[in-house]
Amino acid sequence: MSGREFFTTRTVAEALAGFRPAHRTAVEAVALSEALHRVPAEDIPSPHALPGFVKSTVDGFAVRAADTYGASDGLPSYLDLLGAVRMGAAPTVSVRPGGCVAMPTGGVLPEGADAVVMVEFTAETMPGTIEVTRPVAPGGGLVRADDDVATGAPLVPGGRPLRAPDLGLLAAAGVVTVSVHTRPRVVIISTGDEVVPPDTATLAAGQVRDATASALAGLVLEAGGEPVLAGIVSDEPGALKDKLTQVLPGADLVVVSAGSSVGARDETAGAVAAVGEVWCHGLAIKPGKPTLLAECGGVPVIGLPGNPLSALVVFGQIGIPVLWRLSGCEIPPPRPSTRALLSRDLASAAGRLDVVQVRVRDGVAEPLFGPSALLSVLTRADGYVVVPEPATGLDGGHDVDVTLYA
Amino acid sequence: MSGREFFTTRTVAEALAGFRPAHRTAVEAVALSEALHRVPAEDIPSPHALPGFVKSTVDGFAVRAADTYGASDGLPSYLDLLGAVRMGAAPTVSVRPGGCVAMPTGGVLPEGADAVVMVEFTAETMPGTIEVTRPVAPGGGLVRADDDVATGAPLVPGGRPLRAPDLGLLAAAGVVTVSVHTRPRVVIISTGDEVVPPDTATLAAGQVRDATASALAGLVLEAGGEPVLAGIVSDEPGALKDKLTQVLPGADLVVVSAGSSVGARDETAGAVAAVGEVWCHGLAIKPGKPTLLAECGGVPVIGLPGNPLSALVVFGQIGIPVLWRLSGCEIPPPRPSTRALLSRDLASAAGRLDVVQVRVRDGVAEPLFGPSALLSVLTRADGYVVVPEPATGLDGGHDVDVTLYA
Repeated sequence: MSGREFFTTRTVAEALAGFRPAHRTAVEAVALSEALHRVPAEDIPSPHALPGFVKSTVDGFAVRAADTYGASDGLPSYLDLLGAVRMGAAPTVSVRPGGCVAMPTGGVLPEGADAVVMVEFTAETMPGTIEVTRPVAPGGGLVRADDDVATGAPLVPGGRPLRAPDLGLLAAAGVVTVSVHTRPRVVIISTGDEVVPPDTATLAAGQVRDATASALAGLVLEAGGEPVLAGIVSDEPGALKDKLTQVLPGADLVVVSAGSSVGARDETAGAVAAVGEVWCHGLAIKPGKPTLLAECGGVPVIGLPGNPLSALVVFGQIGIPVLWRLSGCEIPPPRPSTRALLSRDLASAAGRLDVVQVRVRDGVAEPLFGPSALLSVLTRADGYVVVPEPATGLDGGHDVDVTLYA
Repeated sequence: MSGREFFTTRTVAEALAGFRPAHRTAVEAVALSEALHRVPAEDIPSPHALPGFVKSTVDGFAVRAADTYGASDGLPSYLDLLGAVRMGAAPTVSVRPGGCVAMPTGGVLPEGADAVVMVEFTAETMPGTIEVTRPVAPGGGLVRADDDVATGAPLVPGGRPLRAPDLGLLAAAGVVTVSVHTRPRVVIISTGDEVVPPDTATLAAGQVRDATASALAGLVLEAGGEPVLAGIVSDEPGALKDKLTQVLPGADLVVVSAGSSVGARDETAGAVAAVGEVWCHGLAIKPGKPTLLAECGGVPVIGLPGNPLSALVVFGQIGIPVLWRLSGCEIPPPRPSTRALLSRDLASAAGRLDVVQVRVRDGVAEPLFGPSALLSVLTRADGYVVVPEPATGLDGGHDVDVTLYA
């Protein structure tokens, strides 16, 4: 990462451009059945030509094209039926002038033939004689041995997560293991004296169960990472620094979900500064201003705001692009989105990115507001609208892009 | 399924409306960490109220609101500082008239107080005395114990796959295991004498590696199912019927990727008819016409065309909605899509659904055509455009919806 500064507020655009980890995760070989959405480190070349043989693309008859020239309904060509090609088997006959061989779609073109005439333009007028009523050009009704993929040509590009259809082409080419980046290990540290594990049955006064870690883990999984929940650290001085020191060696990315009090936020900044370099402290985003971005021994560290919704917003805008980059993903996967009519005006400040949760019903996006302490917006929102940095707001009554939760 | 008929061609709309399995998969309890994108069988009620206590939403001072009435910069109220509330702990002091207690955001409101005044409108003018320059109304600066979620209120709806933010609210409410539908087991049978496993290093003449099964498995995983590859069945009479009989008891959905020859297709129809009832044979979709839909002992069976691309198109249009339904998913997850300028006219036939693969670059969707035997379109396409059943085509030069491969 370049351009490090201490305790500077940055815009989201600056963070996306500048807070970019240099390292990529290692490369491992995985079976094709485990490869969906994994990111190939490099283009995967085809070990074989496809289809690998001259292949009929129609049901019909293998012929010498010249034998069909001038054929018509009124003046058909008559060819001797010399045999049939079976699916999945080498031809046992060749085609001599004046002859033809019955072909299934996908069959191997027999020697001597240079085209396949479709069955629709033929009739077996007498046993052993095929009448052809349309001419076919050489190469008609077939694909050549490397028409689909040449040996060594890339089957799929490096840096793009593998899609379901990709797996089909890889299988066709005999590629059954692929070299992909390992899933980035994202260590999630929760902090705060008030925070207790979700399985705490009865809360003491003032305690809250850790909502952020579970939701972050879900976002990490969706983005192809491996979430590692590192537990809850108290606000005691030194505790977070100790935890960071412990987890950094095994992490590709560390996310600290900060306590929500002022003191807890200062503690996070101090602990991170003690083990690495702070890139920015304060992000021009709403919600999410008290965000801290740092690098500790080459590992990016994101200090998230204490409010769970703010934490998820910042992780979505900053953390997921970092995660993609760590996993070698140069062509990010598309995210579900829709166009919807914004039900009311949204105000923003120029230079700040606003992320507004919305509920979408019948093509209308209704912003969800309310005290930021309320968590139920997490399940009521169907997605969010972004008010970009240069804008001072969005006008209601117009269509906007809504990024949808999947 | 209702309205069964033998060997009838149906439209995609008819299939979506009528080819609907009655059964749903069983329900199992899974840990929250395993619950992303799983489908809750029913609304999940909150076992506790949230936040569970009267909670400050600001940093400031807990007060009796009446003590601040009329306060202004010119005429502040002066309150005795009685103590401080610590995060995550029960208050140890209460607020009497004329007094106040320091509060962190998220702290528990002490007895006697009915509001929290923000620190921005206060100053500690003398040790132990807090000056308040703005009035606060009762309830100001706090949320009540059940403002977020009441005990027994639904946290997330049944029938909607769990999203990452949902996991946060569930964790906050102490729900650490959830009842969700089991992943539908989708048994994928490949057929065709010419088809060999993807790990076949050297092909004999006319052989092709099984592309369809791997790609289908990817689509099944994406849609929340569990793919089970049942191997390749020869075109030998009886072989497919035997395989169907063997796999049906353990399947929620069976997909047969048919051989591409006419004979292989007839074999599929015969085998399926022998163990169940054919709902339609022939679908008004391009590509994908030779599709067979059937029900065998309550299990839907989809006979796909032999061409891999056609098979994926039909599975995407018909199989995935069936899979969602089996898994209890009433609110399907959004699929990635974009608007793009269609680069050329697309012709279609009224009453037929056309699915056209496209490459998307710089906002332009370019249709990919070529011999249907070519598989490389699987990786060249970024998504597809649907020409709906009533339309006779789409005009180039206009924006269209493109469903993107994730």
